Amino acid sequence: MIQRPRGTQDFPPEQMAKRRFVENSMRVTFKSFGYSEVQTPTFEHLELFTAKSGEGIVDELYAFKDKGGRDLALRPELTAPVIRMYVEKLQMDPKPLKFFYFGNCFRYDRPQKGRYREFMQAGCELIGCDSPAALAELVALAWVLLKNVGLKNIVLRIGNLDFISRVLDNLNIKEEVRKKLFPFIDKKQFDELEVFMRKEGFSGEQIGSLLGFLNCSDVDEVKGFVDDDNLIKPFEEMLSLLPTFGIEKYMVDTSIVRGLDYYKGMVFEIEVPALGAEKQLCGGGAYDLVPLFGGKQVSTAGFAVGFDRTVVALENEGYSFPEERLRAYVVPIDNDSLPYALKVTMKCRELKIPVDVDLTGRSIAKSLKYANSRKAENVVIIGERERETNTVTVKNMETGEQKNVTIGELLNVLKG
Amino acid sequence: MIQRPRGTQDFPPEQMAKRRFVENSMRVTFKSFGYSEVQTPTFEHLELFTAKSGEGIVDELYAFKDKGGRDLALRPELTAPVIRMYVEKLQMDPKPLKFFYFGNCFRYDRPQKGRYREFMQAGCELIGCDSPAALAELVALAWVLLKNVGLKNIVLRIGNLDFISRVLDNLNIKEEVRKKLFPFIDKKQFDELEVFMRKEGFSGEQIGSLLGFLNCSDVDEVKGFVDDDNLIKPFEEMLSLLPTFGIEKYMVDTSIVRGLDYYKGMVFEIEVPALGAEKQLCGGGAYDLVPLFGGKQVSTAGFAVGFDRTVVALENEGYSFPEERLRAYVVPIDNDSLPYALKVTMKCRELKIPVDVDLTGRSIAKSLKYANSRKAENVVIIGERERETNTVTVKNMETGEQKNVTIGELLNVLKG
Repeated sequence: MIQRPRGTQDFPPEQMAKRRFVENSMRVTFKSFGYSEVQTPTFEHLELFTAKSGEGIVDELYAFKDKGGRDLALRPELTAPVIRMYVEKLQMDPKPLKFFYFGNCFRYDRPQKGRYREFMQAGCELIGCDSPAALAELVALAWVLLKNVGLKNIVLRIGNLDFISRVLDNLNIKEEVRKKLFPFIDKKQFDELEVFMRKEGFSGEQIGSLLGFLNCSDVDEVKGFVDDDNLIKPFEEMLSLLPTFGIEKYMVDTSIVRGLDYYKGMVFEIEVPALGAEKQLCGGGAYDLVPLFGGKQVSTAGFAVGFDRTVVALENEGYSFPEERLRAYVVPIDNDSLPYALKVTMKCRELKIPVDVDLTGRSIAKSLKYANSRKAENVVIIGERERETNTVTVKNMETGEQKNVTIGELLNVLKG
Repeated sequence: MIQRPRGTQDFPPEQMAKRRFVENSMRVTFKSFGYSEVQTPTFEHLELFTAKSGEGIVDELYAFKDKGGRDLALRPELTAPVIRMYVEKLQMDPKPLKFFYFGNCFRYDRPQKGRYREFMQAGCELIGCDSPAALAELVALAWVLLKNVGLKNIVLRIGNLDFISRVLDNLNIKEEVRKKLFPFIDKKQFDELEVFMRKEGFSGEQIGSLLGFLNCSDVDEVKGFVDDDNLIKPFEEMLSLLPTFGIEKYMVDTSIVRGLDYYKGMVFEIEVPALGAEKQLCGGGAYDLVPLFGGKQVSTAGFAVGFDRTVVALENEGYSFPEERLRAYVVPIDNDSLPYALKVTMKCRELKIPVDVDLTGRSIAKSLKYANSRKAENVVIIGERERETNTVTVKNMETGEQKNVTIGELLNVLKG
């Protein structure tokens, strides 16, 4: 038996219905915020991803050569591809541009609970506007998006990479050393960070200062470490607008570093406690990629949501997904009733009502059993009496009630 | 500048809106026929495709080794993956199973007009029922699917691979020779077929017999070549049901061979003349794959539709796609009006109305110009007067009419 590749997923109907439900909810929210959907290819030139993240990322990519010898890679994320498309053909469009996407991404990773080698991301990019209000709207979109899909408990943390850069500048910590500190900061391993900094020969004052900064939980505390209104004021203004945009609750978190490879300025993350250990669901912020891809400097910001995890988070929170059910299963009880049964079935289908019809010629008992397995809401039975009187017998599978009605009456029942 | 890989496509908003429109229409039709959506991974073990089509297909695949040394391939089509999923985990489910899918597929092909290296297929598989009525319903689904998306002129041809097998049996033409004849038959190059058969030493009678069969245009003519009721009767019965299923017009075409690598029995193709040279849009029929993948013998049939070509076909037929427009663009005319403008904007968004708001602080004139470029139906202007009276000024961008209304009135206008 040939099995699916390791770390990938199949989605049978029940799972797929949940996914489309979440996708549709997200699409409606993105559109309500004035975003338009785009799509890019599943693979890109490898250099699109190495340009941004360095050669090190190749180990985490599905990279391959095509038969023309070109280095390609299955996309690990969608920000670089969307910005590549923007640079390639949309630079002249009126700004701001607001794009959203859904797309499968690939990561050559050790498969583990909640992490797959192929996974779907939903996300968006805002190009050409970085006012505090625009950034507040972006964060609000992430919040509303997850609230609208039905998540009850989400935790929003907002930071700013300019702050930590300034603090590290003030402490005279060089670029190559910073890179060693960030993994500790990213994982909030502050004890380990302290041990590491001691080993590296940092003074107690330096260590205390950095740890003090990393533990800031509001802007006023940040001001004690970053004395620059040009950095603080726009951030404060952005935060002040969040309630107007419907954000109920958030935390300032100065320790968000997001890998730092192309983000700059405002960054944010959203966690869902219901996800347990792998609880991060969304991350984003302002970034800089357009010049790297050969385009004219323009402000860019965006975020991505783990789509698969969103579905799992809803399941974990006990969300009640709408069931996809057949409105009716039509059963011709003898071969002569088949054409009339087909006529009735096709009348329903013309109205786009989801119905099915028995074409196996099996017994009524077996058809009823099958109809149950398909969760049909009604069974429509058609025999000699029905075809002679131009009627159908419809049985409500929940109440068990059975009645003889005209085709017109049936359609009214099924439409309702 | 990094460009997108050769033979792939980017879909900016306008194009993407058309695609989602077509996809949604298809999804509704699939569901109305009792089909449920499934999804499988983008890549599979290479052997899934070579098992079916032989090693020769590797040249047309994006095949690569992952870092564990496994041979993988980006899927070139979705029937094999869906049947693999069925064998892997759905064999015990009550039959018939009716699955549909949308998925990106990949073919290492010379890019040309209408043919891309990454393309999308829509399609379906019917597992566990091959009665004439079930096959008629399958063909009807393909027909209704394309009619419902809005195509005006489609041409349906139906054949049966059992017929040509029987004719070739009767002519004592061996398997290895058949393989050489099929490419001519597939392309309907009957003159070239005749020349080739003469060269191969076939008798005039053999050649005449095969060509006579290939030119059959109804079942009665086929009977002159295939004298077996077990083959003819079910096919006739299937054809007789097509009008009941809403098929207005079709042709019997005995020369459809569909590569023959896993199809058997009934086969069909749908062309759209508006597509010009690359006019085939849909192909399908009965096939046999389950035992090959290690599953228990069960009847299977299905079809696939070229999704990208469907969109092109609609464009070529002059189909009028619905436009995706902003219902309103909200313009705060000074900085003090921003919070009130945001409040109005978010009220619209709570109702899922697609609206946007100027967060750049530019002039009204520039905002109106931008609103026009976004095809906003209305512009909502908010200044001192509006915030003091808890109203908004709404300008209809088509009629130019401008009026002062309450927020409640605005929401009613935008919902309508």
